[in-house]
Amino acid sequence: MSMSMRVRVMKWVRFVSLLFFLLGLQAVSAAKVRHYKWDVEYMYGLPDCIESVVMGINGQFPGPTIRAQVGDTIDVALTNKLSTEGVVIHWHGIRQKGTPWADGTASISQCAVNPGETFHFRFVVDKAGTYFYHGHYGMQRSAGLYGSLIVELEDGKREPFHYDGEFNLLLSDWWHQSSHHQEVSLSARPMRWIGEPESLLINGRGQYNCSLAAGMINTTLPKCRFRGNEQCAPQILHVLPNNTYRIRIASSTALASLNLAIQNHKMVVVEADGNYVKPFAVDDIDIYSGESYSVLVTTDQDPSHNYWIAIGVRGRKPSTPQALTFLNYHPTSASKLPSSPPPTTPLWNDYNRSQSFAEKLYSLIGSPAPPPTFHRRLILLNTQNLVDGFTKWAINNVSLSLPSTPYLASLKYRIPRAFDPRSPPDNFPAEYDIMKPPANPNTVTGNGVYVFEMNQVVDVILQNANVLNSTSSEIHPWHLHGHDFWVLGYGHGRFHPKTDEKKLNLKNPPMKNTAVIFPYGWTALRFVADNPGVWAFHCHIEPHLHMGMGVIFAEGVDRVKHIPSDAITCGLSAKMLAAAAANTTLH
Amino acid sequence: MSMSMRVRVMKWVRFVSLLFFLLGLQAVSAAKVRHYKWDVEYMYGLPDCIESVVMGINGQFPGPTIRAQVGDTIDVALTNKLSTEGVVIHWHGIRQKGTPWADGTASISQCAVNPGETFHFRFVVDKAGTYFYHGHYGMQRSAGLYGSLIVELEDGKREPFHYDGEFNLLLSDWWHQSSHHQEVSLSARPMRWIGEPESLLINGRGQYNCSLAAGMINTTLPKCRFRGNEQCAPQILHVLPNNTYRIRIASSTALASLNLAIQNHKMVVVEADGNYVKPFAVDDIDIYSGESYSVLVTTDQDPSHNYWIAIGVRGRKPSTPQALTFLNYHPTSASKLPSSPPPTTPLWNDYNRSQSFAEKLYSLIGSPAPPPTFHRRLILLNTQNLVDGFTKWAINNVSLSLPSTPYLASLKYRIPRAFDPRSPPDNFPAEYDIMKPPANPNTVTGNGVYVFEMNQVVDVILQNANVLNSTSSEIHPWHLHGHDFWVLGYGHGRFHPKTDEKKLNLKNPPMKNTAVIFPYGWTALRFVADNPGVWAFHCHIEPHLHMGMGVIFAEGVDRVKHIPSDAITCGLSAKMLAAAAANTTLH
Repeated sequence: MSMSMRVRVMKWVRFVSLLFFLLGLQAVSAAKVRHYKWDVEYMYGLPDCIESVVMGINGQFPGPTIRAQVGDTIDVALTNKLSTEGVVIHWHGIRQKGTPWADGTASISQCAVNPGETFHFRFVVDKAGTYFYHGHYGMQRSAGLYGSLIVELEDGKREPFHYDGEFNLLLSDWWHQSSHHQEVSLSARPMRWIGEPESLLINGRGQYNCSLAAGMINTTLPKCRFRGNEQCAPQILHVLPNNTYRIRIASSTALASLNLAIQNHKMVVVEADGNYVKPFAVDDIDIYSGESYSVLVTTDQDPSHNYWIAIGVRGRKPSTPQALTFLNYHPTSASKLPSSPPPTTPLWNDYNRSQSFAEKLYSLIGSPAPPPTFHRRLILLNTQNLVDGFTKWAINNVSLSLPSTPYLASLKYRIPRAFDPRSPPDNFPAEYDIMKPPANPNTVTGNGVYVFEMNQVVDVILQNANVLNSTSSEIHPWHLHGHDFWVLGYGHGRFHPKTDEKKLNLKNPPMKNTAVIFPYGWTALRFVADNPGVWAFHCHIEPHLHMGMGVIFAEGVDRVKHIPSDAITCGLSAKMLAAAAANTTLH
Repeated sequence: MSMSMRVRVMKWVRFVSLLFFLLGLQAVSAAKVRHYKWDVEYMYGLPDCIESVVMGINGQFPGPTIRAQVGDTIDVALTNKLSTEGVVIHWHGIRQKGTPWADGTASISQCAVNPGETFHFRFVVDKAGTYFYHGHYGMQRSAGLYGSLIVELEDGKREPFHYDGEFNLLLSDWWHQSSHHQEVSLSARPMRWIGEPESLLINGRGQYNCSLAAGMINTTLPKCRFRGNEQCAPQILHVLPNNTYRIRIASSTALASLNLAIQNHKMVVVEADGNYVKPFAVDDIDIYSGESYSVLVTTDQDPSHNYWIAIGVRGRKPSTPQALTFLNYHPTSASKLPSSPPPTTPLWNDYNRSQSFAEKLYSLIGSPAPPPTFHRRLILLNTQNLVDGFTKWAINNVSLSLPSTPYLASLKYRIPRAFDPRSPPDNFPAEYDIMKPPANPNTVTGNGVYVFEMNQVVDVILQNANVLNSTSSEIHPWHLHGHDFWVLGYGHGRFHPKTDEKKLNLKNPPMKNTAVIFPYGWTALRFVADNPGVWAFHCHIEPHLHMGMGVIFAEGVDRVKHIPSDAITCGLSAKMLAAAAANTTLH
């Protein structure tokens, strides 16, 4: 081997070594720990161009977007910079396998973080998808404590669909009355309803005192004039013609059920709540609080125009104007508004249309199918009731009132008298007429737990009913912590096991973490109780949860190890720690 | 002895036995434990006839009045019914001898009580007087968390003055903006000042949109029309002619310095902050936030008239109308208003008049005199500054930022890194010009402690100065926890030890727990550090404390035993308990 030859070989070896070294680095980086330091505090903001107090993170509203890859560990050091309030953050859609104490639900998975203290939310993101995070204490989500959490596939892995670019739209609703004031209203006797939101927000931005579409739609509002750098100016989606974009959409609304449409553009739905679905094309999508979707949009329209993206309210008689932004086609100016009116939101109470959309969802081929049978079935009646004159929502006649000790601690350490040891009812009386206001409007508050055997297959039939004081029934989007469930089907009226069971989709039902019940309807869910921990299952409408609309599920808590002690230093678990410490040299 | 005689003797013996038995009972009742169960929550109220959210106790605003006797033990089981906020209650003026953990100061004497939890404030009231209680976390006092605490002499003991009846007036100020919003404003960069209160309240009642004295005074407001049972109707003081009444007056204002006058009636001041003073007669009294007084009023006026009680703002340019109620002489109708205009409040910025009133206070003969010399002297400069653009108040250039671990625990258990271990400065630079805005407007936040030797005699010279941005200086009423102090004197300009020391009153200075510093002035206090515990010393103006205007004193913490564990389950003391518990079978 000549000298030059040897040099060349050496160079080649060095190059290959470097290559392997770099590939090795990449393999390491593919599952890394991502550290965040977040300060939560109230601040002034202009969510809808009207100055309000919002709950922000590191001075941002909405909070910072987390982007991670499957397998990464997220470590958020959350410091409570509030004056007198505790705080927690729930990572909506993340199942928290092995880390049930990081689910961020006050009174359930942990004690609220005290002012001045720092808590580490440390958990693995194990599934790609579009998620978000939000406060889960009192009505701090309504106060603006939310942000996006996006999990991408590992390097080298590919989504089962193609796209050239992506956008992220986190939707919410906004009131000018503070969430503190709203809480007092909802807890007053008689209850005072908070009313419809003043504004809808896209990534924390809405326009209350002007309209982007003034002149095109029936409004007395003046046209919005933005330079673009205003806090409440819409984020415009700048696109190239003939590309396909993934638009991630999540709804953190406190109340509003939404519908989103993009003028002249079809949307192909490919993901729901972090699970792939069989792609289907629609002109608009319904999105309820707690849900997330990815849609593919191909920019196949005349590039000399821009096109509205319109978000409106459905499911309640809307009094809130549409939220608007638009696709800006290159090279058309971003200051040129679309030339025709924005798509109108489908009729708010066309529930057949709503159900028809929900029933378009099927899991993508290759997704896990549900077990063929269930071990335990809960039939959960949703009713609006009174407790001593206070308006509540109840599930099988129990309105959830959270205890001061987190269930994870009280179940793990078998702390007596931390909550009602009796299981809440698995069903409701046969004679209950769901089509009428409750014959007996009174209910009770409670905090019992549905405890499942590990790996039990659980069916939940959510049964809607008539409200308290009028002949009507409301939409409720139910969200399950710690699990995805299969949505086996929807039906109208009362669920009849013998006949309705046969209509359920056990072949390719979509997996989700949030599913809606339609007015007077039922929704059938199935999940496997395979995640040791204590998990909230509740209506994702913030005021409804505040009024008791939820239940507590638990499984395998004896298998939970290493609960961080700073997750349980409140209530009776704090007393337990103090009593144990008293046997030491401290006292 | 005849039969009838024996019967009579037996009857007499039984009577005497009963007498002794009843006296015995009374002796027992003279030092009893008084139990209270209090729920703290937000509720709707009409403090000044405008609907607001107020912080109430058991549905009442102000909170229930506690009446006890010297030697009684008060046991308040305080349950936090708030949604996300901690809460504590400070028993203003009670020295908490032997129970420093019951002082009710979050971050200082205890952890805030978490939502859903109950904490027992158990302490002895050892001195007769007019006291009050209030929230001491965030700005919960501003939210309405306050009430009266009146300690009477033991049965059989007599006050050193006579009265036929008594009234209690708890004064406060009220904003229509929520205290949460106020906190955000004060903490904003740049700071937004909350402005003057909308209303002054007497026992939680004021009139914002009407005036009782309309037609007599220069106001465009309509006349108030009350039946008397409205939430905001004034409490009228019904009196008999030619009687002497003790009127207890305490000020829980968030901001306002007040002046109270009773039309045509002299007031004889007999008590200040729970200490007897040498009686003196005045036409009106100044009362600063944190102070309490008892005055004697003799109803020696024409009983065919009623007479205004007027409360107005001094010390800041007032924009808040006087609060009004009146003495209703029997048998004159309570619906008959006084026939001439209410007394006008003395000029707000006549500080000579203010100081002259303060200097009328001497302790009653027989009261304890101060020790003749001091062991340690702090000279505390009060300045308004900036920290990174945030407006703060600082003491010797340190703005108090409370830690998340209560000092009582961190000092008792020597917990490292719980607060700054360096003592804050005992004095300020000689070159500081108190007559001008600070040459360097920037300061730092800190949380160090002034630690005193047990039984040290401590002098504190509170030195006022010019504010940040204009040529002016503000009034600050300073309140000391855990002690009374002697007010040795007031002076104008900078305190000069050599010359000013000689002017101090060491013979019969009044004992108080709150004393004011006048604009550009100094106030000299002396106290004995004889109460083991950690004690706040701070400006009683709630926004000023929020902005850092306070210091922490501690003495004899090693002597404190039996701190209830539920007072310390937060911050690093919770971690300490958890670490100790980890050595047990728990983990």
